[in-house]
Amino acid sequence: MKKVAIIMGSDSDLPVAKKAADTLRELDIPFEVHVFSAHRTPEEAREMALSARDKGFGAIIAFAGMAAHLAGAIAANTTLPVIGVPCKSAALDGMDALLSTVMMPPGVPVATVGIDGGANAALLAAEILSVSDDAICEKLTEKRKKDREKVLSKDADIETRI
Amino acid sequence: MKKVAIIMGSDSDLPVAKKAADTLRELDIPFEVHVFSAHRTPEEAREMALSARDKGFGAIIAFAGMAAHLAGAIAANTTLPVIGVPCKSAALDGMDALLSTVMMPPGVPVATVGIDGGANAALLAAEILSVSDDAICEKLTEKRKKDREKVLSKDADIETRI
Amino acid sequence: MKKVAIIMGSDSDLPVAKKAADTLRELDIPFEVHVFSAHRTPEEAREMALSARDKGFGAIIAFAGMAAHLAGAIAANTTLPVIGVPCKSAALDGMDALLSTVMMPPGVPVATVGIDGGANAALLAAEILSVSDDAICEKLTEKRKKDREKVLSKDADIETRI
Amino acid sequence: MKKVAIIMGSDSDLPVAKKAADTLRELDIPFEVHVFSAHRTPEEAREMALSARDKGFGAIIAFAGMAAHLAGAIAANTTLPVIGVPCKSAALDGMDALLSTVMMPPGVPVATVGIDGGANAALLAAEILSVSDDAICEKLTEKRKKDREKVLSKDADIETRI
Amino acid sequence: MKKVAIIMGSDSDLPVAKKAADTLRELDIPFEVHVFSAHRTPEEAREMALSARDKGFGAIIAFAGMAAHLAGAIAANTTLPVIGVPCKSAALDGMDALLSTVMMPPGVPVATVGIDGGANAALLAAEILSVSDDAICEKLTEKRKKDREKVLSKDADIETRI
Amino acid sequence: MKKVAIIMGSDSDLPVAKKAADTLRELDIPFEVHVFSAHRTPEEAREMALSARDKGFGAIIAFAGMAAHLAGAIAANTTLPVIGVPCKSAALDGMDALLSTVMMPPGVPVATVGIDGGANAALLAAEILSVSDDAICEKLTEKRKKDREKVLSKDADIETRI
Amino acid sequence: MKKVAIIMGSDSDLPVAKKAADTLRELDIPFEVHVFSAHRTPEEAREMALSARDKGFGAIIAFAGMAAHLAGAIAANTTLPVIGVPCKSAALDGMDALLSTVMMPPGVPVATVGIDGGANAALLAAEILSVSDDAICEKLTEKRKKDREKVLSKDADIETRI
Amino acid sequence: MKKVAIIMGSDSDLPVAKKAADTLRELDIPFEVHVFSAHRTPEEAREMALSARDKGFGAIIAFAGMAAHLAGAIAANTTLPVIGVPCKSAALDGMDALLSTVMMPPGVPVATVGIDGGANAALLAAEILSVSDDAICEKLTEKRKKDREKVLSKDADIETRI
Repeated sequence: MKKVAIIMGSDSDLPVAKKAADTLRELDIPFEVHVFSAHRTPEEAREMALSARDKGFGAIIAFAGMAAHLAGAIAANTTLPVIGVPCKSAALDGMDALLSTVMMPPGVPVATVGIDGGANAALLAAEILSVSDDAICEKLTEKRKKDREKVLSKDADIETRI
Repeated sequence: MKKVAIIMGSDSDLPVAKKAADTLRELDIPFEVHVFSAHRTPEEAREMALSARDKGFGAIIAFAGMAAHLAGAIAANTTLPVIGVPCKSAALDGMDALLSTVMMPPGVPVATVGIDGGANAALLAAEILSVSDDAICEKLTEKRKKDREKVLSKDADIETRI
Repeated sequence: MKKVAIIMGSDSDLPVAKKAADTLRELDIPFEVHVFSAHRTPEEAREMALSARDKGFGAIIAFAGMAAHLAGAIAANTTLPVIGVPCKSAALDGMDALLSTVMMPPGVPVATVGIDGGANAALLAAEILSVSDDAICEKLTEKRKKDREKVLSKDADIETRI
Repeated sequence: MKKVAIIMGSDSDLPVAKKAADTLRELDIPFEVHVFSAHRTPEEAREMALSARDKGFGAIIAFAGMAAHLAGAIAANTTLPVIGVPCKSAALDGMDALLSTVMMPPGVPVATVGIDGGANAALLAAEILSVSDDAICEKLTEKRKKDREKVLSKDADIETRI
Repeated sequence: MKKVAIIMGSDSDLPVAKKAADTLRELDIPFEVHVFSAHRTPEEAREMALSARDKGFGAIIAFAGMAAHLAGAIAANTTLPVIGVPCKSAALDGMDALLSTVMMPPGVPVATVGIDGGANAALLAAEILSVSDDAICEKLTEKRKKDREKVLSKDADIETRI
Repeated sequence: MKKVAIIMGSDSDLPVAKKAADTLRELDIPFEVHVFSAHRTPEEAREMALSARDKGFGAIIAFAGMAAHLAGAIAANTTLPVIGVPCKSAALDGMDALLSTVMMPPGVPVATVGIDGGANAALLAAEILSVSDDAICEKLTEKRKKDREKVLSKDADIETRI
Repeated sequence: MKKVAIIMGSDSDLPVAKKAADTLRELDIPFEVHVFSAHRTPEEAREMALSARDKGFGAIIAFAGMAAHLAGAIAANTTLPVIGVPCKSAALDGMDALLSTVMMPPGVPVATVGIDGGANAALLAAEILSVSDDAICEKLTEKRKKDREKVLSKDADIETRI
Repeated sequence: MKKVAIIMGSDSDLPVAKKAADTLRELDIPFEVHVFSAHRTPEEAREMALSARDKGFGAIIAFAGMAAHLAGAIAANTTLPVIGVPCKSAALDGMDALLSTVMMPPGVPVATVGIDGGANAALLAAEILSVSDDAICEKLTEKRKKDREKVLSKDADIETRI
C-alpha cells in the first residue's frame, strides 16, 4: 500500500496538518510526517521529494503559509502528485499563501486545496491512491455516506433550533 | 490504462481545455471530452461523475469560469480525484473562478491548479495516474528533462538577447 | 399564501439564517428550514429545488460559505427566484462566498445579498412575494416606517452622545 | 401583466442593459427603459421608485458602475424587488460596482447579479414575476430547456474541435 | 463662522464620528450632528443637504459603512464640499465602504479620507474652512506644530524603549 | 479670487490632469500647473506646498500613480486642502495609487477622489472655493443643472436605442 | 563598520521594529533608532536621509503603516539602500502599507520585505553590509545554520506531536 | 568590482529584465544574465546561488511571474542580498507574483521592488554596491540629478501642453 507524506514548512502549521493526519488515520492510510522548510532546509525538502516515489509514497501533502513555496519546491523534484495546503498567517488572510501555492508555472503543477484545508488535502490524497486501490475507494464511499448522514441528521432537527 | 475526462462548463473554455488535451496526447494518455454545465445541464454532469470510475476514468479535469461550480459539482458525485481549472472571464481577472473552485468545504476536495492552467491540469492528471502506472511515470520524467533542457538552451543564448 | 424555503449548506450558517427566520416571522410569512449541502447531499438539494414550486414555495433562500455553490445548485433546478446569502468563514472575510454566489453564468441567476445578510434575504423574499400579495406589501411598508422612526429617534438624541 | 423597469445610471451602461431588454423581449415581458442617475438626477430616480408599484411594475432593474448607488437609491424608495447589475468600468474590474451594489445595510436589500450580468437580471425579474404568473413560468422552463439543448449540442461535437 | 455638519448613516458609526467631533471641538469649530440613513431616511438626508449652505454650513462629513452611499447621496444634493468617511464593518475590512465612497461618477465628487478616519475628516473640514478663515488657519498650524513635537518627543526616548 | 494648483507626479498623468484643467477653465477658476515628483524633486514639491497659501492658492490637486505619495507629501507641508487623484498605471488597476493616497495617517488628511477622477478633483476644488465665493457657487449650481439636463435628454430617447 | 538606521513613522510600529533591533543586536551590528514621520516631521526624516551616508550608515530600515510613505520619502533623499517594512494597521490587513511601500516609481527603489517583517528587514540590512564585510557574512552563515538546525530538531519529534 | 547577477525564471521575463540590464550598463556595473527556473531547473538555480558570493557577485536580481518562487529559492541558498522583481502575467495583474515574492518567512528575506520594476531592481543593486564603492555612489548621485532635471524640464513647459 502506498504511503502519504505530510510535510510542514514550519511547526506552526501543525494544527492544520493535524487535521490531515487525523483523516488519514481514519481511512487507515499509512503516512509519514516531516518539518522541512523550502527556505531554511532546502536540501532536506529536495531529498525528500527526489526519493519519495522509491520509498513507496503515492502522494505528498505540503503545508505552508505566507510566500508558500514548499509545495512548489517539492513538486519541482518529483513527478508524484503534490498537494498544497495554503496556511493562513498573521496578515492577508491566507491570500498570499493561496496565490503562492496555486499559480504554478506550466510544467510543475500543485494540486491546491482551500486555505487551511488539512482534512480535504488528506481526502484528496486518498482519492489519488483510490485510483488503484479498491479498499481506499470503499472507505471513501463509506465516509461520503457518513458525511451525508450527518447533514441529514442536522436537517432533521433544524426547525427546532432556528 | 485509466482514461482522463475533460469537462468544460462552456465551450468558451475550449482554448484552455485544448492545452490539457494537447498535453495528454503528448503523454499518450487516453481521454474523453465533454461540455456539461453545472447549472444548465446538472443531470449530465452528475451522471458523468457517478459513472466515471466504472467507465475506467482515473481523473476528471473540470474547466469553468465565473462562479465556477463545475469541479465541485463533479467532485460531489465521485470519489475519483477531480482537478479544477479556474478560467478567467470578462471581469475580476479569474479571481472569482479561483475562489469558487479552490475554497471547497470539508469532505469534498477539488485539486485546483492555476488560472487557465490547462496544461498543468493534464500533467497533474498524469501524475495521479503515474502512482500506479510506470509508463506514465517515465513519460513524465522524460517531459521534465525536456522542459529542463528548454530552459538551459534559453540560458545558453540569453546574453545575446538582452 | 406562498411559503419561503430557508436552506443552509451547513448548520454553522445557523446564526445568519436565524436572522432570516426572525424577519419572516416578524412579517408573518410561512417558511420551512433545511440543512442540505450542495456537495454532501446533492440529491436532497436538487429534489428540494425541483419540487419547490409545486409545494407552494415562492422564493428560496440559500446560505453557504467558502466556495458557496448551494444557491447556484438550487437555482439550476428551479425557475423560482433563488436568493443567495454568502456567509463569512474563517479565511478571506467572505469574499470567496460572495464571488461564488453572485458571479453566476448566463442563464441561471442568483439574487445575491450582502455577506451574512440574513435579514435582508428575508426582506427580499418578502418583496418578491409582495408583487402579488398586498398584505405583505403593507407589512413591508410598515416595517420601512418603523426603521425610519428608529433612525429619527437616534437622530433626536445623538448630540448628547457624541 | 406586471411590467419591468430598466434604469441605467448612465447611457454608457446601454450595452449591458440591452442584454436585459433583449431577454425580456424574448420572454414577451413588457418593460420600460430610463436613464436616471442617482447623483445627477436624484429626484427623477426617487419619483420613479416611489410610483413604480402603482404604475404596474413588478420588478426594477438598476444598472450602474463605479460607486454604484443607483440600485440602493431606488430600493430606498420602494418595497418592490430591486435587481442591481454592477457594471464594469475603467478601473478595478467591476469590484467597486459589485461591492457598492451588494453590501446593502439591513432593511433595504438589493438583489445583486454578477458583474455586467444584464441577461441574468432580466431572467431574475422574470422569475420574480413567475411566482404569480404561470405563463412566464412556462417560458422560463422553455428557455432552460433550450439552454440545456445548446450545451448538449456543443457536447456532441466537442471531440472534433479539441 | 461656518459650521460643519456631521452625519452618520447609523449610530453604530458613533465611535468613529466622535473622533471628528472631538477634533472640531479642539479647533473651536461649531458643528451639528445627525443620524440620517441614505436608505432608511432618504428624505431627511436630502433635505439636510439641500438646505446646508443656507443654514451656514461650510462642509459636511458623512460616515457610513458597507455599501456606503450616504456621502454620495448628500453630495448629489449640495455643491458644498462633502467629506466621506468609509467605516469598517463586520466583513471585507472596510474595502466595501471605501470603494462605495470614493469611486463617485463624474459630476459629483466626494472628498474621501481613510477607513475610520474620523479625526482626519474633521481636519479636512477645518482646512476647507481655513481657505477663508485665518483663525482656523492658525489653529491648524498650531496643531501641526504640536503633532510634530509629539513625534519628536517620542524620538527622544525611543532608544530606551527598543 | 483664490487659485487652484495642479501638480502631477509625472507628465504621464497629463491625460487625467487635463480633465481637471478643462473643468477649471469651464468654471473660470484660475489655476497653475506643475510637474513635481515626490521622489525625484522632493524639494520643489515641498516648496510649492509651503508657499501655496501665501501665493493665493485655495486648493491643491495632486496626481500620482503607483505608490502615490505626492498628495501626502504636499499635504505634509501645508494646511490648505489637498485633493489627491490616484492614477491607474500598468499593474494593479489603480488600487495601489488609491490606497497610497487615501489611507493617510491621523493629522494629515488628503481629500481623495476616484481613480483617474481628474474632473471630479476640479469640481471638489471649486466646491471648496465656493464656501466663500458666491460666483463659483452659482457656476457649480449651473453645472449641476446642465448635467441633470444631459441625463434627462438621454432618458428622452433611450427607448429608441435599446 | 557601517551602522544601520531604524526609523519608525510612529511609535505604534515599535513591536515590529523591536524584532529588527533584536536581530541586529544578535548579529552585533550597530544601529540607531528614530521616530520620524514622513508627514508630521518631514524635515527631520529628510535630514536624516540626506546625512545618513556621511554619518556612517550602510542601510536604512523604515517602518510605516497605512499609506506608508516613509520608506519612499527617505529613499528620495539618499542613494543608500532603503528597506521598507509595511506595518499592518486596523483596516485592510496590511495591503495598504504593502502597496504604498513596494510600488515605487522608476528612479527611487525601496527594498520591501513582508508585512510586519521586522526580523527579515534586519537580516536584509545585514546581507547588504555583508557584501563588503566578511565578519557579518560569517555571522549570517552561522544564523542560517542555526535556523536549519531548529527546523531539523522540530522535524525530529514531529511524529510524536501530530 | 562586484558583479550583479540577473536571473529570469523564464525568457518571457526578458522585456522586464532588459530594463535592469540597460540600467546596469548605464551605471557601468558588470553583470551576468541567466535563465534558470526555480521549478524546471532547481539544481542550476541552487548552484548559482551557492557559488555567487565566491564568484564575485554582490547582489542577485531574480525575475519571476505567477507563483514567483525564484527569488526565494535563490535567497534560500545564499546570504547575499537577493532582489525580487514580481512580473505581471496573464491573470491577477501581478498580485500573485508580488505576494509570492515579498511575503517571505522569517530568516530568508527577499528585497522586493514593484511589479515589473526592472530598472528599480538594478538601481537597488547599485545602491547595495555603493555602500562600499564610492564610484557607484557618485554615478547614482549623478543619475538622481539627471532624473530631477528631466522632471524640471517637463515642469517648464507643462502649461503649454495642458
